Amino acid sequence: MNGAEALMQTLCDGGVEVCFANPGTSEMQLVAAIDKQKKMRAILGLFEGVVTGAADGYGRMTDKPAVTLLHLGPGLANGLANLHNAKRARTPLINIVGDHAVDHLKYNAPLTSDIIGVASPMSDWVRTSKSPSDLATAGAEAIAISQSYPGSICTVIAPGDHAWGSNAVIAPQIKVSTPKTISDEDISDAAQKLLGAEYPALFLGSRALRKDALHHAGRIAAKINARIICETLPARLQRGEGVVSIERLPYFAESAVEFLKGLTHITFIGAPPPVAFFAYPDKPGWLSPEGAELLELASPDIDAEDTLKRLADAMDAPNTLEKIQTKEIFDYEEGELNRDNAAMITANLLPENAIVSDESGTSGGSFFRYTASASFHDWLIITGGSIGQGLPVAVGAAVAHPSRKVVSLQADGSGMYTLQALWTMARENLDIVVIIMKNNSYGILNIELDRVGVKNPGEKALSLLDLSNPIIDWLALAKGMGVRAHAASTTDEFSNYLQEALNSKGPCLIEILLP
Amino acid sequence: MNGAEALMQTLCDGGVEVCFANPGTSEMQLVAAIDKQKKMRAILGLFEGVVTGAADGYGRMTDKPAVTLLHLGPGLANGLANLHNAKRARTPLINIVGDHAVDHLKYNAPLTSDIIGVASPMSDWVRTSKSPSDLATAGAEAIAISQSYPGSICTVIAPGDHAWGSNAVIAPQIKVSTPKTISDEDISDAAQKLLGAEYPALFLGSRALRKDALHHAGRIAAKINARIICETLPARLQRGEGVVSIERLPYFAESAVEFLKGLTHITFIGAPPPVAFFAYPDKPGWLSPEGAELLELASPDIDAEDTLKRLADAMDAPNTLEKIQTKEIFDYEEGELNRDNAAMITANLLPENAIVSDESGTSGGSFFRYTASASFHDWLIITGGSIGQGLPVAVGAAVAHPSRKVVSLQADGSGMYTLQALWTMARENLDIVVIIMKNNSYGILNIELDRVGVKNPGEKALSLLDLSNPIIDWLALAKGMGVRAHAASTTDEFSNYLQEALNSKGPCLIEILLP
Repeated sequence: MNGAEALMQTLCDGGVEVCFANPGTSEMQLVAAIDKQKKMRAILGLFEGVVTGAADGYGRMTDKPAVTLLHLGPGLANGLANLHNAKRARTPLINIVGDHAVDHLKYNAPLTSDIIGVASPMSDWVRTSKSPSDLATAGAEAIAISQSYPGSICTVIAPGDHAWGSNAVIAPQIKVSTPKTISDEDISDAAQKLLGAEYPALFLGSRALRKDALHHAGRIAAKINARIICETLPARLQRGEGVVSIERLPYFAESAVEFLKGLTHITFIGAPPPVAFFAYPDKPGWLSPEGAELLELASPDIDAEDTLKRLADAMDAPNTLEKIQTKEIFDYEEGELNRDNAAMITANLLPENAIVSDESGTSGGSFFRYTASASFHDWLIITGGSIGQGLPVAVGAAVAHPSRKVVSLQADGSGMYTLQALWTMARENLDIVVIIMKNNSYGILNIELDRVGVKNPGEKALSLLDLSNPIIDWLALAKGMGVRAHAASTTDEFSNYLQEALNSKGPCLIEILLP
Repeated sequence: MNGAEALMQTLCDGGVEVCFANPGTSEMQLVAAIDKQKKMRAILGLFEGVVTGAADGYGRMTDKPAVTLLHLGPGLANGLANLHNAKRARTPLINIVGDHAVDHLKYNAPLTSDIIGVASPMSDWVRTSKSPSDLATAGAEAIAISQSYPGSICTVIAPGDHAWGSNAVIAPQIKVSTPKTISDEDISDAAQKLLGAEYPALFLGSRALRKDALHHAGRIAAKINARIICETLPARLQRGEGVVSIERLPYFAESAVEFLKGLTHITFIGAPPPVAFFAYPDKPGWLSPEGAELLELASPDIDAEDTLKRLADAMDAPNTLEKIQTKEIFDYEEGELNRDNAAMITANLLPENAIVSDESGTSGGSFFRYTASASFHDWLIITGGSIGQGLPVAVGAAVAHPSRKVVSLQADGSGMYTLQALWTMARENLDIVVIIMKNNSYGILNIELDRVGVKNPGEKALSLLDLSNPIIDWLALAKGMGVRAHAASTTDEFSNYLQEALNSKGPCLIEILLP
C-alpha cells in the first residue's frame, strides 16, 4: 500500500471516523485513500475555516479527534482562526496538511510556503512525515497525543511523495495517556481550606463543566454554601434540567470584577484565574478580588471530575442534591420580537439533548440566561474569541450526534466569516436550526469603541462597524446554498418557524431582527 | 497625539490613501485615527481574506501600498492566503495588526497568539512597535520597504497601549530605494549571447510584463526572431491592442515542456526559470529544455524595463515595431454558451483600459486566448496559486482605478472562498462585472486526480471534488449581498447582460454555466 493508504488505515484503526476536507492537488492521494476506508466519512467544506471549525465541534462533542484534510500552507492558513478556537477549547483534533514532494521543495513553486511556520501558532504539536511509512507513524502519534486529556491540536504535514510512495506499512496504535490526577495531600489541603472559607467559590472550566463533574461541584456547594462559577467562554457546558446550575462570569471586565467582589476564597478547577478579554486604558486586566485566596487546584490537563469527586468526598459533602435545575416555561410578551421574548421562546422550545452552538455576540445574553432552565442540553461557545466559529461548530456537532438537534445561535457579523458552512449543512442534510440574530452591525465594536476611550467617533469610524449598507439578506444567502429559510419579526412567526424547524429533519435558517 | 494618530498621519504623509479593514476591539484606536485623516479612505471587508486580497489588487494596479487593518493573530490568519498570493506577486502592501497592550500579554487572554509567528510565513518584513512613537516609525519603515522595487509585504504589529499612548510624534518619511540595475558588462554579454543564439526566447515575469517594458522585448524579438514568453501566473500583464504580444507558458508541466522544446537559449528577466506547479510521480519538475543555455539576467528585484531597454539598445534593435497586437472582433457560433463563444463575446466587448481579475480556473483558458486581441487591458492572475483571490483583487483594482471597468472572471469553486467580497462591491458601488463560470465542480481536481495517478476513483473521492449537491445559486448569493445578478445560458443572453453591465456603473454579476 502507499503512504496515504497506510495513514488512513492507521487513523481508522485508531477510531477516527470523520474527515472534514477541502483538499487540493497535493492531497489527491489522501482523498483516494479515504475512498478505500468504509468506516471513514468524508465531508466537504467549501472553505477551510468551515473544515477546522467543524472538526472542533465534532471533537468537543465526542472527545475524540476528527481529521481535517487541508491544502498546503495557504489552505491551512484559511483554517487557522478556528484552530485557534479549538486550541483554546482543548479539542482533540488532527490536521493532515499536504505538501509538495520533498524533491519539489527546492524549486520554490508558487504554492510553496513554510507550513511548519503556518501550523505552529495554532497547533500544540506539529510533525512532518519523513517517509511513506513514517506518515502512518505520525498519524498514530497524532491519534494518541490529540486525545491526551483533555485534548490538543496535532498537525501532520504529508509531503506528496510520502503519500504516493509504496511499500508503506500500517502503524501500530499508541496508548493514550491516562489523565493526570491530584495527590491526596493536595485534595485534603484544598478541602480544609474550602471548609474554613468565609465566602468561597469554585471557578470551573474545561471538562469540569460536564454534568457528572458538576454533580460533585454541586455537592461541595451544598456543603459549604459556595458559589459555582463557570469561565466566560466554555468549550462545552452541560446545563439545563437535571444539572447543577452555575453562574457564568460576565464578559466585560468591570462587570466581572463586580461579579467576583466579596469572595474570599476561589478554587480553580479546569481553568486559570480569569483575566479581561482585552486591555483598555485604565481598566483592570486581573479580575479576582484583591486579598482573596486563589487556589489553582487543577489545571485543565488534570482530571476535573476526579478532582471534584475526591474533593467533595474529602469534605464529606452530601451525595443527594436538593438544588439541581428544574425546567421552567416562560410567559413572554407577544408581539414584536425582542431579545427577551425571542430568548424565552427558544428556551421554551429547546428539545431535550439539544446542542447549542453559541456565537450570538451582543444579541445573545438573554438566550444564555433563559435557557438555563430549559431541557438538558450542551452549550458550545466561541472559546478563543475568534469569530466565524458558530456555523462550522454546528456542522461538526451535528455530524457527531445525528440524533440530537443542533441550534446555532448566530450573530450576523460573525456569521459572514464562514457562511459557506450553510452549504455543508445542506449537502449532508444536517439537523441544524440556524437562528441569525440580525442587528446589521458589529454590535460589540460599537460598545468597545467607547470602552477603549474613543469619544465622538466620526462617520468613517462608525462605517467600519456598520453592516447596514447594504443590508445582508440571509434568506437569499441560505437559498444560494440550498438551505430553506424564513424571516420572523413577531413572536408568533418565530415560535411557529422554530417549532416547525425543530419538528422536522435537516437544516433550516430563521432570520430574526434584534436591534 | 496618540500613537495611532501619529501612525495614520505618517501613512498619509507617505502617500497611503486607502485602508482596507476588518478591525476588532484592539484596533479601535486605529479606527478612530483613520477618522481624522481626510485623505485616507476606509473600506470594510466582511472577512479578512477580502481585505488582504483587495489590498493586493490595489497594490498591483498602483505600485504603491494600501494598508490593511486586521484583528490580532486570528484576523491576520484569515488574511494569510491572499497575502501569500500578494507576496508571490511582489505587491507593495502594509498590514497593521493590532495586539493586546504589552502589559496584558502575560495574562494569555483568549485571543492572545504568536502574531509574529502568524505573520512571518506570508510577510517579507515583520516589525512590532516598541512605543507609541515607534509605531509611527514602524509605519514609515513599512512605507519605504513595501515599495522597494518591485514591492513587498510589510506587517506592523501594533500593541493596544502603543495605539492609545499619548505624546507620540509623526515619523519622518524614509526614501524608497531606487531599483537595482544590471551592469553594462552583463548587458553586453547577454546581448552577444542573444545575437548568437539559434532558437532564443525571452522569458519574462513581474514588471517586465508592463506595456513599456514589453515594447523593448518586442524590439529584441524583432531583431533576432526570438519568442517572448510570459510566466504562467503573472501578477499584472498589460496586453491587447497596441501592446507587444506574448506567449504564456502553459500550466501543466507536460504541456510546458512541449512548449519550451527546441529553444537553445532562454534569457530570464523578472522571473526565475519555470518549474512545475505541483510534483507528480514520474512527471518533470524542471521545465526548461535539457542543454539549453539559461541566462538568469535579471531577477524580479532588478529594474525590468531598464534591463530590456538597455539590452535592446546594446543589440541595436529597431525602435519601431511592426508586430504589435491589433484588435480583432470574433464571429462566434450563436446559441448555447460554451467556453469559446463566451470568451469571444467577452473579448469583443472588453472595453479599453479594462482590468481583468482572472480566477477562472479550468473554464478560463479560452478567455485568455481570445482577449489577446481585445482592446488594451491589464490582466491580474492568481500568482501564488491560493484560490479565493479573484473577487477581492477585483475589489482592490476597482478602488485603485474608479474610472476603469473591472471584469472579474471567476470560477465557482474558488469564488466561494471569499464570496463576502460581493458585499464590499455593493457597499462601495465598485464598477465591477463578475462573470461566474459555473461547472459545479472543483474542475482542476478532477483533472489532477488522474494526473497524480489515482485510477478509478470511487464515489467518496469524487464527492470531495463535486459542487453539485446542492447546486450553488450565485444569483441568490449576489442578492444576499446587494449585488444585482443575471444568469445567461445563451450567447444572446450573455452578450446582452454583459453589454448592459459594461454600459452601466456599479457591480453586476452574471452567472454562466460552462460545463
